[in-house]
Amino acid sequence: MRIRGAPLLGVAAAYGLAVTAHYSRASNTARMIRELEHSSSLLVGTRPTGANIRWAVQRIMSKAARFDSVESLRKFVLAEAEKIREEDIQSNMRMGRNGASLLGDGDTVLTHCNAGALATAGYGTALGIVRAAIQEGKRIKVIATETRPLLQGSRLTAYELASEHIPVTLITDSMVAYVMQQGQVSKVIVGADRILRTGHVVNKIGTYTASLAAKKHSVPFYVAAPLSTFDHMGSVESVVIECRREKEVLFLEGRRIAPRGVTALNPAFDITPPENVSAIVTEEGVLWPPYEESLQTVARSDR
Amino acid sequence: MRIRGAPLLGVAAAYGLAVTAHYSRASNTARMIRELEHSSSLLVGTRPTGANIRWAVQRIMSKAARFDSVESLRKFVLAEAEKIREEDIQSNMRMGRNGASLLGDGDTVLTHCNAGALATAGYGTALGIVRAAIQEGKRIKVIATETRPLLQGSRLTAYELASEHIPVTLITDSMVAYVMQQGQVSKVIVGADRILRTGHVVNKIGTYTASLAAKKHSVPFYVAAPLSTFDHMGSVESVVIECRREKEVLFLEGRRIAPRGVTALNPAFDITPPENVSAIVTEEGVLWPPYEESLQTVARSDR
Repeated sequence: MRIRGAPLLGVAAAYGLAVTAHYSRASNTARMIRELEHSSSLLVGTRPTGANIRWAVQRIMSKAARFDSVESLRKFVLAEAEKIREEDIQSNMRMGRNGASLLGDGDTVLTHCNAGALATAGYGTALGIVRAAIQEGKRIKVIATETRPLLQGSRLTAYELASEHIPVTLITDSMVAYVMQQGQVSKVIVGADRILRTGHVVNKIGTYTASLAAKKHSVPFYVAAPLSTFDHMGSVESVVIECRREKEVLFLEGRRIAPRGVTALNPAFDITPPENVSAIVTEEGVLWPPYEESLQTVARSDR
Repeated sequence: MRIRGAPLLGVAAAYGLAVTAHYSRASNTARMIRELEHSSSLLVGTRPTGANIRWAVQRIMSKAARFDSVESLRKFVLAEAEKIREEDIQSNMRMGRNGASLLGDGDTVLTHCNAGALATAGYGTALGIVRAAIQEGKRIKVIATETRPLLQGSRLTAYELASEHIPVTLITDSMVAYVMQQGQVSKVIVGADRILRTGHVVNKIGTYTASLAAKKHSVPFYVAAPLSTFDHMGSVESVVIECRREKEVLFLEGRRIAPRGVTALNPAFDITPPENVSAIVTEEGVLWPPYEESLQTVARSDR
């Protein structure tokens, strides 16, 4: 959790392989590939839920056999990592422009967790859409959920928006349905850690709750994610929800906030079913339900 | 917020009037009644959302004119406050027995905020039902939401259950829908700060969110509250939701947890509509929808 945000995890994993290649003492490419494969499985194992680590690692490893010298392979891995980083920023900006068309002047966007510049190589996915809409001259306000247990909404989302003078109001996670009931939310936009081809969205715990409230109050619920977030193979059953240490719930920033002797659950993600997702914004365009079909129109460019 | 929990607020308000009577230097009953009326409006004004303060104050004031000496009025007010306290414990125990019939052996009850011994004069409303079911020999587990911003779920509910060795697991408010989606919750039981005759339940912020998730996952959603919590006059529009200081969201136990320059909303309560409430457990029996009708069967005893 020193690094978080699905797209940024992909970028970091790519640089992780570049570091492996850089320090490798392998005398031939076959040995270096074995070392890279070892690093790859370590990297993929760090966060079972996100799709982007696997995507970045596969993108590099699928081309690794093409190189006939250790030096050219080493150069390729670093260049590819830099390309992934650069592409992430570019794809966020395209995604932002695609998503901005969904926002109207005066809209208030509720977002959960952090899908901003601090979750990507820059610009952001959900918050990239907010940025793009504001650049188009639309007045947009944001309501950010604080996102317990780790407070990414207050520490990161509220921080990055306030420092750009984008109006942001913080709420506790318990207030999500209330602000919608009160008519204070025009749209919800969240990021994603993994999206299945069926349109099931794996994202920060609490996203599913927000989607239920949005559906109840007819608030459009948008997910913003690069195509590298899509898992074209997995089923709902195959998704492993990372369960993190109880301590994150029982303590806050190192201080105990729950009584001793109490246990806690700490699933880090939940799964929002496609019927609660109004649209998915990608760098290649906005996908509408049914997602299995609309995904076909952009999937080719990803392959 | 030094005192919280709707039933306990009623008890405290009654003792507040007893203190006024005790220190009064009024030379006749008319003057003492004016002083008590002044205290009454101060007490009712402290917490606009709860119904029990108004109920306790009205119960005492409606009989105050009967007394012809300052001393007999003073004695009456204290005796009535003590009666309200004693009745609260007794009514909680009856409510517990009534509600226990709704729980089965092996059930896991999700509760929000604190509706336990620490919210009443003793025993509790929602947690009184859990205690009664356990006394009947049923094995019951509790999932407690931490209840941001003030953490009544972890500080009070988890504390009082753990100290009685009733199994309790803490979750963040964002996990409510997830644990239901995973089939981990058999029933929801919450308290109430005010219940309208239509069955609208005003309770701690986040209750409405939990009710949406419960409805979606067909988990029965029960409200436990004494008849003194019912507001027989008010409409949804007349309910004033207490909005508390931003600081409670931006800080936790005195420490800043949100970036500077960020604003916050802090509504303390929300309103759950009757269609999300499976039943209301009172000391006089379990009320089933439609509540306007079922309330008639017990309302007379309250009048």
